[in-house]
Amino acid sequence: MKNFTFYNPVKIIFGKGQIPTVAKEIPVGAKVLVTYGGGSIFKNGVYDQVKAALGEFEVVEFGGIEPNPHYETLMKAVALAKAESVDFILSVGGGSVLDGTKFIAAAIRYEGADPWELLSQKATVKAQSAVPFGAVLTLAATGSEMNSGAVITRESTKEKLSFGSPHTFPKFSVLDPETLFSLPPRQISNGIVDAYTHVLEQYLTYPVNSPLQDRQAEAVLLTLIEEGPKVLQNPQDYDAMANFMWAATNALNGTLSAGVVTDWATHMIGHELTALHGIDHARTLAVVLPSLLRYKQESKQAKLLQYGERVWSITSGTPAERVEATVQATVRFFESVDIKTRLSDYAVGPDTIQHIVERFEQRGPKNLGERGDIQPRDVQEILTMSL
Amino acid sequence: MKNFTFYNPVKIIFGKGQIPTVAKEIPVGAKVLVTYGGGSIFKNGVYDQVKAALGEFEVVEFGGIEPNPHYETLMKAVALAKAESVDFILSVGGGSVLDGTKFIAAAIRYEGADPWELLSQKATVKAQSAVPFGAVLTLAATGSEMNSGAVITRESTKEKLSFGSPHTFPKFSVLDPETLFSLPPRQISNGIVDAYTHVLEQYLTYPVNSPLQDRQAEAVLLTLIEEGPKVLQNPQDYDAMANFMWAATNALNGTLSAGVVTDWATHMIGHELTALHGIDHARTLAVVLPSLLRYKQESKQAKLLQYGERVWSITSGTPAERVEATVQATVRFFESVDIKTRLSDYAVGPDTIQHIVERFEQRGPKNLGERGDIQPRDVQEILTMSL
Repeated sequence: MKNFTFYNPVKIIFGKGQIPTVAKEIPVGAKVLVTYGGGSIFKNGVYDQVKAALGEFEVVEFGGIEPNPHYETLMKAVALAKAESVDFILSVGGGSVLDGTKFIAAAIRYEGADPWELLSQKATVKAQSAVPFGAVLTLAATGSEMNSGAVITRESTKEKLSFGSPHTFPKFSVLDPETLFSLPPRQISNGIVDAYTHVLEQYLTYPVNSPLQDRQAEAVLLTLIEEGPKVLQNPQDYDAMANFMWAATNALNGTLSAGVVTDWATHMIGHELTALHGIDHARTLAVVLPSLLRYKQESKQAKLLQYGERVWSITSGTPAERVEATVQATVRFFESVDIKTRLSDYAVGPDTIQHIVERFEQRGPKNLGERGDIQPRDVQEILTMSL
Repeated sequence: MKNFTFYNPVKIIFGKGQIPTVAKEIPVGAKVLVTYGGGSIFKNGVYDQVKAALGEFEVVEFGGIEPNPHYETLMKAVALAKAESVDFILSVGGGSVLDGTKFIAAAIRYEGADPWELLSQKATVKAQSAVPFGAVLTLAATGSEMNSGAVITRESTKEKLSFGSPHTFPKFSVLDPETLFSLPPRQISNGIVDAYTHVLEQYLTYPVNSPLQDRQAEAVLLTLIEEGPKVLQNPQDYDAMANFMWAATNALNGTLSAGVVTDWATHMIGHELTALHGIDHARTLAVVLPSLLRYKQESKQAKLLQYGERVWSITSGTPAERVEATVQATVRFFESVDIKTRLSDYAVGPDTIQHIVERFEQRGPKNLGERGDIQPRDVQEILTMSL
């Protein structure tokens, strides 16, 4: 096992009927900025529950945060928050609203020239400069509710970059599985594949003798495989939805990456597809991951064989055959939850691959993957395999 | 899954060579009370490492905190801490020193008549009244390094009681597996069985549809079964020790109990054996648990069968036969790591059982177990089965 630091102070309030508890979690007398997205919270009753819970507080609202939240949009919220001198932010929505809220929280009191530096230059969020925030989650997918990271898109330059800080953890996150009952199937499908890929990015690297973390990863994978299809089939199945929601949170709360090496190349390549073509984040992962696993199968072989055996019961054949069967099982699982896995399914062709490779080349010599050995020409090979 | 709240703000700093980092974690200028136990930290070099790390701080020391830390001893530390106006406490030792430190931290500014009320009356620890503390852990067993609970013994009345509060989490815990290299085998054995039983108390109850938590529990059990014997055989095996240490922490950091029902009857009964006869905590668990599982096998059957199948590969026979084989496998594991499992192994006879039953009866109608159906007469049956 490698040395590590683990810190995660998010208070998780999980279960049906928990939204009213936000009133006890927000400091008394705080002026609260409520952030949300496209308006689904008005249809599913969550907005009304939140408004009722916040009855004692002065509230300002900022809606319209889009999927893959835009810097340009978020800066409007920052201006509003400054003008209104808000003390606390409550994110009501999915991972995009929450990621956007993390950026808003860090940007309001940012002392540099432009808060975009938090992403482009990895500028530090200072201890006392982040505005505290909490979340009411209405989507299970990104894990943002129990980590300090966020991914923000700059629309004007088509850049999708990430940042994070020990000071951008939510103070609390309310996870009520019933808020997911009315989600479109597309978003459930995305959530299953997003969470699943989060686990694989932390698990399918090379062995560092971490039996506990490996089994914790497999625990999340097996739960997603079992519960994901149930949720798609019956979105009102509370237990299945609760298990799916908690699995997605556990997929990216720091537990699985403690003491191990992580990859994240699939995410970095996928972000480009989203930035350039607006393809749903999870779908870009489903396109990139299988090819990346095949392309890097030699350096990932030990973990791929373990994954195949423990998660898919694949134990016969040569190592190469077992690896291929394992990747195919993964692809079949993605397709079974209605996520297509080829670039051609999304009308993306070789031109885009060339464009993405050029963008990686322009950003300079920062290679991807757990060994830092995925160069732009490797990205080209991987994406070509996904055509 | 049941509704739950999960909150664990402990910063874990894990790995070899991490002790010097405590200097960065303690507030600048703090006057630090260093607490420790019987002096093993002087032999294994940990004291010297801590002293070197604390070079910039004013330090007061309090040693001699015993296993199953005594209220009487701890109150002397409270007096010292008050007299010296300490700002921070650093626990250097195992679970007993850390549990004792939690009590000291909560007692220094306690406003009631006697801090024992924190245990006897479950008095509340107020938000700003607990003195902050951190830990350098030198034993893997109790999980105290990543939770807010503590068990304290009042020597004068032979009572062993617990308390906990959201304000008695360590601010940080340094877990350096190398500090465990010089432990006596007895303490390693105790640690394995203590951690293993912590998991079973949260896992072997009744099903509430919690597939993720179940597999997370099995992950810890399987890791202890694999790594425990390795550590006993070669206490200098860093990787095995690291895996054992991290498994023990994960056994009781709140993850496994989130959303499920828990038992803890084995602990409550075991505490009495320790209070009356000074038997090592883990050994009392090894004595009580098998009989309790057999006695409650009907209400625990579903989880016992799952545990037998997934952890011990026991799949054939009638349910009753599988349960018995599963309990026997558990007993064999305890015995294989040199922990005896019968009361007679510890020279305890029927008189003690009667004494324990009377103590439970005197405490009034508070039954034990996940269904609250273990009454004093059931305790008598269970202990009699363990003779």
